[in-house]
Amino acid sequence: MAAPTSTTRGAMERSIRERVPPLLTDLYQFTMAYAYWRAGRHQEPAVFELFFRDNPFGGGFSLFAGLHDCLLFLRSFRFTDEDVEFLRSVLPPATDPAFFKFLRELDCSGVTLRSVPEGTVVFARVPLMEVTGPLAVVQLLETSLLCLVNYASLVCSNAARFRLAAGPKRKLLEMGLRRAQGPDGGLTASRYTYIGGFDLTSNVQAGFLFGIPVAGTMAHSYVTSFTSLEEVWPQTLVALNGDPDPVDIISLTKGWLSRVCELLEAQPGKIHEGELAAFLSYAIAYPQNFLPVIDSYSVKCGLLNFCSVALALCELGFRPVGVRLDSGDLCRQSVDVHRVLRLCSERFSVAAFDSLIIVGTNNISEESMAELNKKENEINVVGVGTHLVTCTKQPSLGCVYKLVEVRGTPRMKISEDPQKSTVPGRKAVYRLIDSEGHPFLDLVSLAHESPPEAGVPLSCFPLGCNNSPVSVTPAQVSCLRQEVFIKGQVTHPLCSAAETRAKVQSSLQTLHPRHKRLQEPDSYTVALSEELHSLVTEIRKGSSNNSNFLLAN
Amino acid sequence: MAAPTSTTRGAMERSIRERVPPLLTDLYQFTMAYAYWRAGRHQEPAVFELFFRDNPFGGGFSLFAGLHDCLLFLRSFRFTDEDVEFLRSVLPPATDPAFFKFLRELDCSGVTLRSVPEGTVVFARVPLMEVTGPLAVVQLLETSLLCLVNYASLVCSNAARFRLAAGPKRKLLEMGLRRAQGPDGGLTASRYTYIGGFDLTSNVQAGFLFGIPVAGTMAHSYVTSFTSLEEVWPQTLVALNGDPDPVDIISLTKGWLSRVCELLEAQPGKIHEGELAAFLSYAIAYPQNFLPVIDSYSVKCGLLNFCSVALALCELGFRPVGVRLDSGDLCRQSVDVHRVLRLCSERFSVAAFDSLIIVGTNNISEESMAELNKKENEINVVGVGTHLVTCTKQPSLGCVYKLVEVRGTPRMKISEDPQKSTVPGRKAVYRLIDSEGHPFLDLVSLAHESPPEAGVPLSCFPLGCNNSPVSVTPAQVSCLRQEVFIKGQVTHPLCSAAETRAKVQSSLQTLHPRHKRLQEPDSYTVALSEELHSLVTEIRKGSSNNSNFLLAN
Repeated sequence: MAAPTSTTRGAMERSIRERVPPLLTDLYQFTMAYAYWRAGRHQEPAVFELFFRDNPFGGGFSLFAGLHDCLLFLRSFRFTDEDVEFLRSVLPPATDPAFFKFLRELDCSGVTLRSVPEGTVVFARVPLMEVTGPLAVVQLLETSLLCLVNYASLVCSNAARFRLAAGPKRKLLEMGLRRAQGPDGGLTASRYTYIGGFDLTSNVQAGFLFGIPVAGTMAHSYVTSFTSLEEVWPQTLVALNGDPDPVDIISLTKGWLSRVCELLEAQPGKIHEGELAAFLSYAIAYPQNFLPVIDSYSVKCGLLNFCSVALALCELGFRPVGVRLDSGDLCRQSVDVHRVLRLCSERFSVAAFDSLIIVGTNNISEESMAELNKKENEINVVGVGTHLVTCTKQPSLGCVYKLVEVRGTPRMKISEDPQKSTVPGRKAVYRLIDSEGHPFLDLVSLAHESPPEAGVPLSCFPLGCNNSPVSVTPAQVSCLRQEVFIKGQVTHPLCSAAETRAKVQSSLQTLHPRHKRLQEPDSYTVALSEELHSLVTEIRKGSSNNSNFLLAN
Repeated sequence: MAAPTSTTRGAMERSIRERVPPLLTDLYQFTMAYAYWRAGRHQEPAVFELFFRDNPFGGGFSLFAGLHDCLLFLRSFRFTDEDVEFLRSVLPPATDPAFFKFLRELDCSGVTLRSVPEGTVVFARVPLMEVTGPLAVVQLLETSLLCLVNYASLVCSNAARFRLAAGPKRKLLEMGLRRAQGPDGGLTASRYTYIGGFDLTSNVQAGFLFGIPVAGTMAHSYVTSFTSLEEVWPQTLVALNGDPDPVDIISLTKGWLSRVCELLEAQPGKIHEGELAAFLSYAIAYPQNFLPVIDSYSVKCGLLNFCSVALALCELGFRPVGVRLDSGDLCRQSVDVHRVLRLCSERFSVAAFDSLIIVGTNNISEESMAELNKKENEINVVGVGTHLVTCTKQPSLGCVYKLVEVRGTPRMKISEDPQKSTVPGRKAVYRLIDSEGHPFLDLVSLAHESPPEAGVPLSCFPLGCNNSPVSVTPAQVSCLRQEVFIKGQVTHPLCSAAETRAKVQSSLQTLHPRHKRLQEPDSYTVALSEELHSLVTEIRKGSSNNSNFLLAN
């Protein structure tokens, strides 16, 4: 594993500019920006909030991710001449040319972002990000910020669920690049599944850019590309400790093969020569990293070949690593394989065989991962692709970005669908923690209210609970969001993937198990302060009392 | 709409290099490449095939897409010093340093690609791409080619299904950027949904890079950002044909408002002033492009405001465009809206009101799209986001890349799972067409076989049919694949998105409706030639007869 260097960090920033140019947004952001500009409202101070309405996967929590990319995006947000010329060709011909001059000079120097730290456990309806700045600019940022947070948070949460399902000991390998939404989908998946709790990725570029440990050995095509032992070259290996003369590894392996066949009462004639040749070639190339896929023809045949080559390696002082199973009933097979490995270890007194690992990869879903904890098996590393990166159970998170204040006045969207109504005003968000250290309630209050105090009871209105207040007394209180970008400057250190990953684990650690259950979790309480609740009630009443309505003409 | 310029085409190529660097692949491609290199096998001529095993979405067909990006990728495939240094840090320390020199000099000058043309209707188990070249190089290409074809083909096929569900007349708008797997997922979705049959995208960068027509007007936040008519500025508009003196548009609109309210027996006091202000401001900015979202508060209120502003615009000689509905029962609402628009048209004699369009956007799925063809409605344009870009029904296609020949010898993976066995040898693929012009069978034969002839009966073995041959007589025969990249050179013109989109429509046009049905389609026949079938049988028999097996030691 290599940590990202300053060169790769530079590449990341460049890459964000390439990946998220300011044109990568919905056209209506520009038509709205123009209408604001035309009405002279573009500089009005405005506040938008980003949140999601339901925890993903029917779960009790989500993880917040994507902030790092948002900060790089905000820092490099600027239109080129080429961008502006393209916009000129797309917007209606009557658009005032001075607007394009305005766009050309735009950047995020007037924008401030308050955000939950990346990698924090979060809940539905809590405003995760607050974006403050000139109305036209913060409007333009909408789609890009949503795009950067939505999938990152979703796949990170998915990874955390796989991690919870797998238990803390098993190593998890992400290998979804080929199933992702194109190249950057794959790269994003590698980054955020690692942050969510995976240990390894197969994606080399993700290792390069983000310092994620990479892993992988061979595909079936490697095995099927060999037909005979004549293709093995060189046919010798120098022992690790001992004789400097090269040893004929093929003969050595054949010797072990007959002993293994005898032990397992198998016929050497049933051995697939091409597979043995593939394993030998690989072992000669990587005598200290021998971990073949053993089910290209049949697990039984692959296992005999593996044991023979691995025993030959052990005899020469090398340590083989293990085997990969890629089809069928992984649990049952791993038990069989483990039994054979133990048998070899005992019969041939090779201690190295006791620490061989079994890697399982076969269309693993959250459910099949959870089964690994119920059924007997000997799988040490699990590789997950499709279900992890595409988030099959729920392939989108549905974050939204809503206007909550303009020129100091709270704004609220009152929808016929109450779920789609927004909570008005600029806010503060506090996490209330109980005496055992578990968070139990997120309190959303107006920004100017004094924060709740540890040990002091407070009354608040849980969302989705028919307007009945509850009284709670926190043992501790933490402020959930912090200023991470002020007037164009990133003011908070950008965390590496490994740092954010550690943050995820500690944030999940404090969450009570009842909220972490993968099935039917207890729902976590998100509540409005009394004052914010009054404001909502007032605006709703005002709305039905026509205070915002046009009185005749 | 602007066509991509040579500058943007340059940007696309740059962007492929940034998006798909040769490190964006699975680590095992490098470990295998090294093992081949170490054994002196890296230059052996090898053939890989790319195909998928099941048509997506339970449908009867798929579309093949992603070729354009594959060609750009192959053309620019090259490792930098930085890439190679990173690989050195990741591969085992014992890796021979000469291997890294080999990598540094690698490119695709030895690679040839035969492929189905992009935008063609294709079927499961037909080899879509054949990649020929030095074993180590064509192995290294696997993950990137899969990554570029998988999602492109999947989302293109999904778009085609939405198009079939919507019928040919309705305009379809893709608006999924914020729900895609990050920025490039969104861009890829825009490109390939357009190719699959969508008409418009909300994604400006997709318009810039690919020449896709872009569309969009306003979000709810724009509407809720206004509270009173005092925010409308300027408050005048110059009529299109007529008096050069600016007209007080607010007074004019208020006049229309009272007439509309009278017509519809509504109370002007129930009008939301902020919404009216938002509509007015937008209309002043874009008098020829007025298409507001009318359900920020309630459709009834939004519609009154829309009619008033639109009638004022008409009076000044402008042509309003229409309305957007973004929640609730779109069909019912569109019928109500349409009725009101017709009423206004008749009462106030404004012909422009007859051609106003209704845009519907509300979490549209393939099923709800299909309903639009069954239920009465007046929706002209449908915007689709989440279900389109994430392919909710099946979020991955599952293309695979399998070795079929090395050094002129056919290779086959014989799996315990028959679905996972491969078909050996280098092949040709022919599409057989019946007398009505519909394709009815794809024939996979060995490359050296003579092609089937029109009017001549032939015997072949349909896949999945228990080894019974069938006899068929094609009225026409076409060769499905062509050489598109020979020894490092792109030999086929790179098509624009619009050209490929046209190809999709004509390819779908010829497909018989029974294969195009979205539910329970008739399955299309894919068959092996007699000779290829014999080869498969022979290798299978050989395998069970141990011809490839190791005979004692």
